Amino acid sequence: MSGKIICAGLGPGAPDLLSVRADRVIRNAPYIAYFRKAGHMGQARQIVDAMLMPDVIEYPMEYPVTTELPVSSIAYRHALAEFYDQWADRLADMARTQEIVVLCEGDPFFYGSFMHLYIRLQERASLEVIPGITGMTGCWNAIGTPMTWGDDVLAVLTGTMQEADLIRHMQTADALVVMKTGRNLPKICRALTHAGRLQDAWLVERGTMPNQKIMRLAEADPNNCPYFATVLVHGQGRRPDFERKGK
Amino acid sequence: MSGKIICAGLGPGAPDLLSVRADRVIRNAPYIAYFRKAGHMGQARQIVDAMLMPDVIEYPMEYPVTTELPVSSIAYRHALAEFYDQWADRLADMARTQEIVVLCEGDPFFYGSFMHLYIRLQERASLEVIPGITGMTGCWNAIGTPMTWGDDVLAVLTGTMQEADLIRHMQTADALVVMKTGRNLPKICRALTHAGRLQDAWLVERGTMPNQKIMRLAEADPNNCPYFATVLVHGQGRRPDFERKGK
Ligand SMILES: C[S@@+](CC[C@H](N)C(=O)[O-])C[C@H]1O[C@@H](n2cnc3c(N)ncnc32)[C@H](O)[C@@H]1O
Ligand SMILES: C[S@@+](CC[C@H](N)C(=O)[O-])C[C@H]1O[C@@H](n2cnc3c(N)ncnc32)[C@H](O)[C@@H]1O
Repeated sequence: MSGKIICAGLGPGAPDLLSVRADRVIRNAPYIAYFRKAGHMGQARQIVDAMLMPDVIEYPMEYPVTTELPVSSIAYRHALAEFYDQWADRLADMARTQEIVVLCEGDPFFYGSFMHLYIRLQERASLEVIPGITGMTGCWNAIGTPMTWGDDVLAVLTGTMQEADLIRHMQTADALVVMKTGRNLPKICRALTHAGRLQDAWLVERGTMPNQKIMRLAEADPNNCPYFATVLVHGQGRRPDFERKGK
Repeated sequence: MSGKIICAGLGPGAPDLLSVRADRVIRNAPYIAYFRKAGHMGQARQIVDAMLMPDVIEYPMEYPVTTELPVSSIAYRHALAEFYDQWADRLADMARTQEIVVLCEGDPFFYGSFMHLYIRLQERASLEVIPGITGMTGCWNAIGTPMTWGDDVLAVLTGTMQEADLIRHMQTADALVVMKTGRNLPKICRALTHAGRLQDAWLVERGTMPNQKIMRLAEADPNNCPYFATVLVHGQGRRPDFERKGK
């Protein structure tokens, strides 16, 4: 009756960007669980590869195969809900006596898959969540330019949004982040062009990971964008004018 | 000729929420610098208190006294610019031979004071920035509720914005964060009320710090808000309907 589920935020990708708290928990974990696509090692598992105990027991939670179902279909959503239901049951069961560490890229509460387990487990298990550096924070640090100044408004958008909604937010916010790019990149580029902001946009692929790539979005191939890729436009907000001119 | 300036993001407040990389750099730092108000220890210095080498040499960078000048006045902005100029000169000088670690709450590139030094030092010193967990990430984890789902739009606003601008963004985004609250809290409450979102808003004071306080904003005293306080409204975005109903 003393078990628990700890979800550890892993940060953007570099293993030494985990928090000290998450690092400690993972190095001592007898059981770990993590999401992955069938047939892949999974990014979360990859990040902690050098940190695990030799006899750790692993539970890869493989997303139901998705190629034959459109993501927006009721059938797909049903398959996904069942998948979360089953893993919530399994984890709740294990957590009665054991401590299980669930790995989550970035911060667990920021567009994270773990949230679907969290709301199912809230009343059934002892839960702890360890915050992480979000992917977008890793990305703007990778570019090496301050992201938001003074009273800049930052809008975080997703490539899955409707084009008209993307445009509206791109026109009214100062700094922009667009997550979930992948095959949505052509739409994101069109929206940024419409909002007059394409020339100021950056694309960061696999920010802080070994194979990180940083480029101006206008120079990227919109039809060849990996899953871990984020679009960013920096704010230029309020600050002494002579700073803006480069002093 | 081998010195350098390293800005270490400290995260939201708990000392074990620093990244492993920042933790290592700070524990080995012979020289540290950090911003603070005159007469205060400073939050950044406080976070690392138990981590410093016994013979560390400290450079507190004290903001010019501000009580007699309105923050928006040209005189104040001039005093601040001079203050950044002088510290940039001093740090550039030291960094020719030494490694100096500059401490910064949260993530350095997210509304951070260090950015004003960074743009002054970019061509004059070897610079490294270590990302940190942002204050807002610490705050939504402190509340213990997932922040953004599916294609939720997150808008990050500041209490220093005009009320009409606050309202507009509060009406069009799904999840909301309002930073720089303090004496702006009455205005923030009015704007949230106008946008119909006050009842869903939380106030987190000193998130993840020992004296953390979490309350519904509607139950807070708007005239008594500390500097480290953030307002948050959670997104309720796209996800299977039965999840929303609590299943
Ligand atoms: C399902 S969301 C999970 C976000 C994560 N919980 C976080 O805090 O960043 C996945 C999206 O995050 C973005 N992302 C996360 N880490 C990234 C990285 N290291 N580089 C680029 N994009 C990243 C990508 O846009 C990706 O499609
Ligand atoms: C000048 S900004 C610096 C932000 C910092 N660089 C970051 O990444 O969070 C200061 C504002 O951040 C917010 N903040 C930072 N840390 C916080 C914490 N632990 N709890 C509540 N608010 C915090 C407050 O709104 C505060 O007014």
